[in-house]
Amino acid sequence: MPADAMPAEAMPAGAPSIADIAAAARRLAGAAVRTPLLDAPLLDDRLGCRLVLKAEPLQLTGSFKFRGAYNRISLIPQDRRGAGVIAYSSGNHAQGVAAAARLHGVRATVVMPADAPAIKRRNTEAWGAAVVPYDRAAGESREAVAAEIVARTGATLVRPYDDPAIVAGQGTVGLEIAEQLAERGLAADAVLVPCGGGGLSAGVAIALAARMPAARVHPVEPAGFDDTGRSLAAGERVANAPGGHSICDALLAPTPGEFTFPVNRRLLAPGLAVDDDRVRAAMAAAFDYFKLVVEPGGAVALAAALAGAAEFRGRTVVAVASGGNADPSVFRTALCDRCPAVA
Amino acid sequence: MPADAMPAEAMPAGAPSIADIAAAARRLAGAAVRTPLLDAPLLDDRLGCRLVLKAEPLQLTGSFKFRGAYNRISLIPQDRRGAGVIAYSSGNHAQGVAAAARLHGVRATVVMPADAPAIKRRNTEAWGAAVVPYDRAAGESREAVAAEIVARTGATLVRPYDDPAIVAGQGTVGLEIAEQLAERGLAADAVLVPCGGGGLSAGVAIALAARMPAARVHPVEPAGFDDTGRSLAAGERVANAPGGHSICDALLAPTPGEFTFPVNRRLLAPGLAVDDDRVRAAMAAAFDYFKLVVEPGGAVALAAALAGAAEFRGRTVVAVASGGNADPSVFRTALCDRCPAVA
Repeated sequence: MPADAMPAEAMPAGAPSIADIAAAARRLAGAAVRTPLLDAPLLDDRLGCRLVLKAEPLQLTGSFKFRGAYNRISLIPQDRRGAGVIAYSSGNHAQGVAAAARLHGVRATVVMPADAPAIKRRNTEAWGAAVVPYDRAAGESREAVAAEIVARTGATLVRPYDDPAIVAGQGTVGLEIAEQLAERGLAADAVLVPCGGGGLSAGVAIALAARMPAARVHPVEPAGFDDTGRSLAAGERVANAPGGHSICDALLAPTPGEFTFPVNRRLLAPGLAVDDDRVRAAMAAAFDYFKLVVEPGGAVALAAALAGAAEFRGRTVVAVASGGNADPSVFRTALCDRCPAVA
Repeated sequence: MPADAMPAEAMPAGAPSIADIAAAARRLAGAAVRTPLLDAPLLDDRLGCRLVLKAEPLQLTGSFKFRGAYNRISLIPQDRRGAGVIAYSSGNHAQGVAAAARLHGVRATVVMPADAPAIKRRNTEAWGAAVVPYDRAAGESREAVAAEIVARTGATLVRPYDDPAIVAGQGTVGLEIAEQLAERGLAADAVLVPCGGGGLSAGVAIALAARMPAARVHPVEPAGFDDTGRSLAAGERVANAPGGHSICDALLAPTPGEFTFPVNRRLLAPGLAVDDDRVRAAMAAAFDYFKLVVEPGGAVALAAALAGAAEFRGRTVVAVASGGNADPSVFRTALCDRCPAVA
């Protein structure tokens, strides 16, 4: 439900403000990439709308996750930095935390499933983090492994989304969108944001509520993992049904975040969901029209824009491409399938 | 031979000056994309140098060719615009001219081989150009077909490289490199530029001779099509041997340009050449580290940087990625081969 159609509801306590996001942007200046907004006039001709792509694959570590991690680590008091930071992730958050810690000169430990793809482990280690494997098949909990290390070492836990400093960091994506559109004399009617735990959509929604309030911010999820969309409709946090499958490995959080959902409930327009065929078609469209490598989870917003072209006719739409750490074999399949790219 | 090691030699008459390139940049502002310089710290760690990629795949039409075409068409007198423009090309120049003409409200005709890939014809037509096919198997000459149309219609011929306004437009790539490095407090030791007819390397070399004179500008060519490299060594224009083959379809000009070579002879450092395996490895490295789609001809400079890592150790190197209009099947092969990406 869009913010303006809802009964007045206060922002939850502790939610970052636009001032917090602006402060995060100042911390990130010079460390993060101000990623470009990309145009594709020939795609616009086909769709009948103005579609721009916010290119977070060009962010350091290949995804927006670096922003939140860097902002969070910036806020660790000097006397606690020596104990390092810890995160649990097998994906983009792991690399984001590892790189942000390296730039801050802080040790990072990442708890990662023992069966995570070798490339993800190698990249995380290449950024200088220590990887601690855990055995998910044996029922070990990554949260428990991380909590034990925190208790023993005093390291600071860097959560993937349920943290105001993480949300403020991801919100710099929204701040840049507003600034970059304004530089071109444009204003967005709709902003489509890939949604897992809801940190990126919460941050972008807070930024745009302040800086481009007419824009409707829609979270976009993989079909079968549309917990945020269904939770927005229900007005409370509901979980995904177990046993689902999606190629969007970055967006498989089981429920909306405890911290992020109250923000998202207050600010987001209805959720959208796309199936794997649409996602592959969007990856191929990003290749054809934007020359950008986008990973499956990073492509859901573009997929929703392509699928919703009829609804967006005549409008200005921003799709956030949230990451580009695509597995080569998955990318090759996307270029091969050639599902119809446009609805 | 680098400029400082050469006997004093005047720039050829008619060569664009840095003022001409700065004027082109002012014309292009708001029409062309100021493409980003991309970093990949993990690749730098591997190579032992600072390597940045100038991302012309993100340019309008997917290659630098738009720059020269737009600048050239800007300079057509008002009373000759009604007769339109004409170009011969089956590739990036065709799309660059078509898009630049569209933005200027000028009709464009492109002479293209009848057996050109359907996608290239479709894209050129999608930008609004009329395509005139010619039969290269029957020995028809595209220059003759174009000359006949010029004689009949008064259209302005937009050459692919042998034109000072084209060279000045491509030179804005060099101007941006100098500005973007300076913004980061960097200076390039070497700038590697894909080279076909020599328009991009001439423009970049003129810009950098004025704005970053310590940088050595190397043209990079496909093995077997290293006419510019051999011509620089010989001091005169020499042709490629017939019958060669390369996946770098954008860089197969048979000889250095008549107009561009005297400029390049004056300003360029020695040429480098890379084989198709190196090119595919560079396309895969652009996918992995920069999340950028680069076509084969656009990837030769990155390929040379990867191959020459030992020589560039400790240096700051710019590789120009000149285009991203990659055929999906060629791109899939590059992701599949996985030749060693680094020497």
